[in-house]
Amino acid sequence: MIFLKNDYSTGAHPDVLQALVDNNMVFSDSYSHDDFCAAAETLIRDLIKCPDADIHFMSGGTQTNLVCMSSFMRPYEAVIAADSGHISVHETGAIEATGHKCIELASPDGKILPEQIEKTVAFHNFDQMVLPRVVYISDTTESGSVYTKAEITALRDCCRKHGMYLYLDGARLAMALSAAGNDITFEDLPELVDAFYIGGTKCGALFGEAAVIINDDLKENFRFNMRQRGALFAKGMVIGMQFGALLSNGLYTKLGEHANRLALDLAEGIKAKGYSFAYEPESNMIFPIFTNEQAAELAKEVMFETWLVNDDGTTTIRLVTSWSSTQEDVEAFLALI
Amino acid sequence: MIFLKNDYSTGAHPDVLQALVDNNMVFSDSYSHDDFCAAAETLIRDLIKCPDADIHFMSGGTQTNLVCMSSFMRPYEAVIAADSGHISVHETGAIEATGHKCIELASPDGKILPEQIEKTVAFHNFDQMVLPRVVYISDTTESGSVYTKAEITALRDCCRKHGMYLYLDGARLAMALSAAGNDITFEDLPELVDAFYIGGTKCGALFGEAAVIINDDLKENFRFNMRQRGALFAKGMVIGMQFGALLSNGLYTKLGEHANRLALDLAEGIKAKGYSFAYEPESNMIFPIFTNEQAAELAKEVMFETWLVNDDGTTTIRLVTSWSSTQEDVEAFLALI
Amino acid sequence: MIFLKNDYSTGAHPDVLQALVDNNMVFSDSYSHDDFCAAAETLIRDLIKCPDADIHFMSGGTQTNLVCMSSFMRPYEAVIAADSGHISVHETGAIEATGHKCIELASPDGKILPEQIEKTVAFHNFDQMVLPRVVYISDTTESGSVYTKAEITALRDCCRKHGMYLYLDGARLAMALSAAGNDITFEDLPELVDAFYIGGTKCGALFGEAAVIINDDLKENFRFNMRQRGALFAKGMVIGMQFGALLSNGLYTKLGEHANRLALDLAEGIKAKGYSFAYEPESNMIFPIFTNEQAAELAKEVMFETWLVNDDGTTTIRLVTSWSSTQEDVEAFLALI
Amino acid sequence: MIFLKNDYSTGAHPDVLQALVDNNMVFSDSYSHDDFCAAAETLIRDLIKCPDADIHFMSGGTQTNLVCMSSFMRPYEAVIAADSGHISVHETGAIEATGHKCIELASPDGKILPEQIEKTVAFHNFDQMVLPRVVYISDTTESGSVYTKAEITALRDCCRKHGMYLYLDGARLAMALSAAGNDITFEDLPELVDAFYIGGTKCGALFGEAAVIINDDLKENFRFNMRQRGALFAKGMVIGMQFGALLSNGLYTKLGEHANRLALDLAEGIKAKGYSFAYEPESNMIFPIFTNEQAAELAKEVMFETWLVNDDGTTTIRLVTSWSSTQEDVEAFLALI
Repeated sequence: MIFLKNDYSTGAHPDVLQALVDNNMVFSDSYSHDDFCAAAETLIRDLIKCPDADIHFMSGGTQTNLVCMSSFMRPYEAVIAADSGHISVHETGAIEATGHKCIELASPDGKILPEQIEKTVAFHNFDQMVLPRVVYISDTTESGSVYTKAEITALRDCCRKHGMYLYLDGARLAMALSAAGNDITFEDLPELVDAFYIGGTKCGALFGEAAVIINDDLKENFRFNMRQRGALFAKGMVIGMQFGALLSNGLYTKLGEHANRLALDLAEGIKAKGYSFAYEPESNMIFPIFTNEQAAELAKEVMFETWLVNDDGTTTIRLVTSWSSTQEDVEAFLALI
Repeated sequence: MIFLKNDYSTGAHPDVLQALVDNNMVFSDSYSHDDFCAAAETLIRDLIKCPDADIHFMSGGTQTNLVCMSSFMRPYEAVIAADSGHISVHETGAIEATGHKCIELASPDGKILPEQIEKTVAFHNFDQMVLPRVVYISDTTESGSVYTKAEITALRDCCRKHGMYLYLDGARLAMALSAAGNDITFEDLPELVDAFYIGGTKCGALFGEAAVIINDDLKENFRFNMRQRGALFAKGMVIGMQFGALLSNGLYTKLGEHANRLALDLAEGIKAKGYSFAYEPESNMIFPIFTNEQAAELAKEVMFETWLVNDDGTTTIRLVTSWSSTQEDVEAFLALI
Repeated sequence: MIFLKNDYSTGAHPDVLQALVDNNMVFSDSYSHDDFCAAAETLIRDLIKCPDADIHFMSGGTQTNLVCMSSFMRPYEAVIAADSGHISVHETGAIEATGHKCIELASPDGKILPEQIEKTVAFHNFDQMVLPRVVYISDTTESGSVYTKAEITALRDCCRKHGMYLYLDGARLAMALSAAGNDITFEDLPELVDAFYIGGTKCGALFGEAAVIINDDLKENFRFNMRQRGALFAKGMVIGMQFGALLSNGLYTKLGEHANRLALDLAEGIKAKGYSFAYEPESNMIFPIFTNEQAAELAKEVMFETWLVNDDGTTTIRLVTSWSSTQEDVEAFLALI
Repeated sequence: MIFLKNDYSTGAHPDVLQALVDNNMVFSDSYSHDDFCAAAETLIRDLIKCPDADIHFMSGGTQTNLVCMSSFMRPYEAVIAADSGHISVHETGAIEATGHKCIELASPDGKILPEQIEKTVAFHNFDQMVLPRVVYISDTTESGSVYTKAEITALRDCCRKHGMYLYLDGARLAMALSAAGNDITFEDLPELVDAFYIGGTKCGALFGEAAVIINDDLKENFRFNMRQRGALFAKGMVIGMQFGALLSNGLYTKLGEHANRLALDLAEGIKAKGYSFAYEPESNMIFPIFTNEQAAELAKEVMFETWLVNDDGTTTIRLVTSWSSTQEDVEAFLALI
């Protein structure tokens, strides 16, 4: 079986696992009050060149999103996201469960535009409507597309103009920052967004995400919110150790590069055989279109996700590579089509 | 420094860690749809002799509690717990954040009694009051006490009489089931409670808890609730691997025994030197009372939690042993007093 | 000033007010446990020929909607509505504030179709997405359109097929049931929907709505939900008296007829002068289109709502008539254009 | 039948009803954007000598409490109240339903003390516990007791010291401000509390409460919160008219005086016949103790609430007078015992 279903199907990158093994018996204080978390926080602050950033380690992406969103908004405020956004469609209403509306914008490629936000803000113009307060973007997006610095800058300017916050879901930040179309660095992020998270689960960690809060307005008592949502991790040191390993020696973006390269090799091979794609391949998730029969045939040999059954007898599938995917996986897949 | 602050201060028991290392590169399906979780579920069903139990792996105790409580109740329903209960006092209002009142019962030893529940049910007698639906107990309790089978049976009977559910927080179930005063086995649990969880974080796992739902009424669509609260773990196999190791060959209760034995050795030594205890030592958490000066002096050499500063110039401290505590820790502590 | 802004701009219809005056000093039990509510409930059950219906009086429409929606769904369940639906757009996220996602369907005329529901249900196909459970419709809709019996029957069949509930927001039920395009009677409603409410606020009452629950599955402990949301009205008898008057001698639908007739007279006059409409006039809310200059000019003499500033230099305005509107209002408006 | 069950058992005081009748056909803008509300707001600001107060009209007490509490707190914050407080015990968990814990303090007489708050604040000392932010008091209390100015001043000072808000539930403010033991005036309130409400429902209105927000920190976007909880009343003018009548010519406190006087006459008569009281009679709610047999006998002729069935064969009952109670009611009751 060729595994191209997602980027969280194996354990941890060997360096990350080794950090866990090496430090397994070190007694540490709980709830991230430990040396490993402190060191990882310093690594992150150095990487983004933002000594005042607040950093919080959590165990998963949906959890990180829901804690951030519910912490950043007053009850009647709402978050704007692409209709394909993770919080819009694939978190079982986690944001709504904390009481907030998620305003969904039509997005053909997973990105949203300042014009859409302007229109949304103008529409919500009195006290019988929710008040948009946060704009949620993900990079890479759920369609595998990658934002440019100019694009996020424009979104940021729009948010600032309206007193809104810009939040970036970095579940696949390793792939975003190492994509061919990317021109954003870690250092740019504090200028671009009010808060974001550095994804671990999909980028080589056993699990874990690092929320980074730049805007002072969003920092107060954040840990209370984490605890209230079950997100204050008892053995925080275990996440700290992992980010220590991931963010040392450029490992994080190297893993992203690896995943991206394999996905683009895969895409090139598929294209070469004459198939088209639902979205232009840019990172480690690609969306080729096969006939329904071909898709069914492939499913016997490959684990992947069916993205959309189209009306014309074709199926869009999602193929995802990760740090643990290999050139052999690529070749084996291409041999099948 | 002697570390007696809690039972989640080191990584994983070596057997658990080894399972993670051994299986690190096995490709698995996500969100607990994998072989490791399936195997761990089978282990648990065999252990409790309940082939129909539903089992769900989550990453922490507060998370498990809040997902269960919010899933088991309709909006206007409430959970009854001891005033020292974890959900009452140490989860930053996590249950209330899901919309439910937590009715707190005075409890000198961390346990609650059927009489208290009867009184509470009788008091809540019309539609301007919440409707008690769940009784929450923990075993061991937050005071280190241990329930007997007769005590839980009486609580269960009271719950059934009133159409209520009994839920057991097993964060320290390893210690409870291996305590001297305990007469409950894994097999008894399905008869005693409607749902419970087998704690991993405090009992030798790197992290993770296994929620076990016995009552059919509580099973439907549980995973939707998990997802909505950010509790559906992407790499579920990683928790499955750990419970596979923990629950094989009796390791789980052995780790509980070890922790209990060291705590009771510690308690005996402290008693022998003339000190008293806030609660009678029964499991791996003990609560000796020292003068404020002694407590301050101890804090220089020992990491522990200050439980209560009493009015008479004394301080109750909490000492906790774990699977990774040693006889040397015990002796070193006793040498200090 | 000609008042065509809404249908809740004056007090109560004289008959309703008289009922309040006549019974003002009658001592009654509280929270709708009184003779006036009992009588009004009987009137409603007779009117809809459904002796088992549960009836609950509340003080406003948003309140009624949020109590019903939060009572009818489990936490991870969602309600489907038109994107112009009151709960979607004009209740400041009231449904989300109770934890539930509102799935919005594009609707050019305020109505939704079974095909849209089918597609939505098919799309929400696993535990990382919300589970659609309720379909919300309003009659008349927010665009003034009116459902036919065949249309609602088709929606009902679709809901039943998928185990979903159909809920009808009857804020303007008086106008709906008396509209020219309507073929639904009070008696039909129990067969068509699982729950609905009979609007008072917009149909001649001083205030108040009567929620009617047909489906037994939705009845249990409903008053607990009301109380929890601040919707159990202390002097319930005051709402009971009003519905007693409103629903006697066909007053309710007479008031709807009156409002509809004036609105259609108005529409005819506007059409005769060559103006077009955003939606075909069907009930007491009509949406003519004027140039921006004309709209600004009208605003000096008429109170109305600006519905949409169009891109072509025109403005859609909303004109609403009520039981207290007069033929003079109509003529005065027509004289202005 | 003698009606002594509560103070909301009849319609409106004649002056209030007349205001509704007189203004019934005045066209007004909706949602409290009307002249009647504006006039009532001015009356209130003049009465309390606080020109900057924000005033919001809502339809009931539980609604007002839940909108205020959820608006004044961030998610992890909690409100402190007496264990007999309305929000603690008789609102079906309305506060918790908005996500907030209600910390209950033991109170023998319905009042709470600064020492209790100090202790509660000290106990909640880290991020695994809720953060107390609001202190809720009611005046008169649920036991009929009345706060003195010195008592509330002490509570206010304690709140200020800890950055907490003091909120006063004035469901029975008319009775409180006109009680013999009271030394607080309307003018004092802005200095004493951060927000309060002037109760209408229990003090002569058909329905309605006026929330008064003094502290600027609590004012922003309050109407959004109201709307989100279904508390933005469509025909706001109807509540405005009522408060206009109630607060003119001292009617409000006159109604309170009337109710208090009858209750104290009643209490004196009951005492004279040798019965004791659960709480010392101070306002319009009194709590005499009869034998269970007497209580059962009384229930045949009098509508009242059974407050507590005591262990010694006696029953504490609650007798409540209102603006519509009469001297005849008092004499008739006394003739029965």
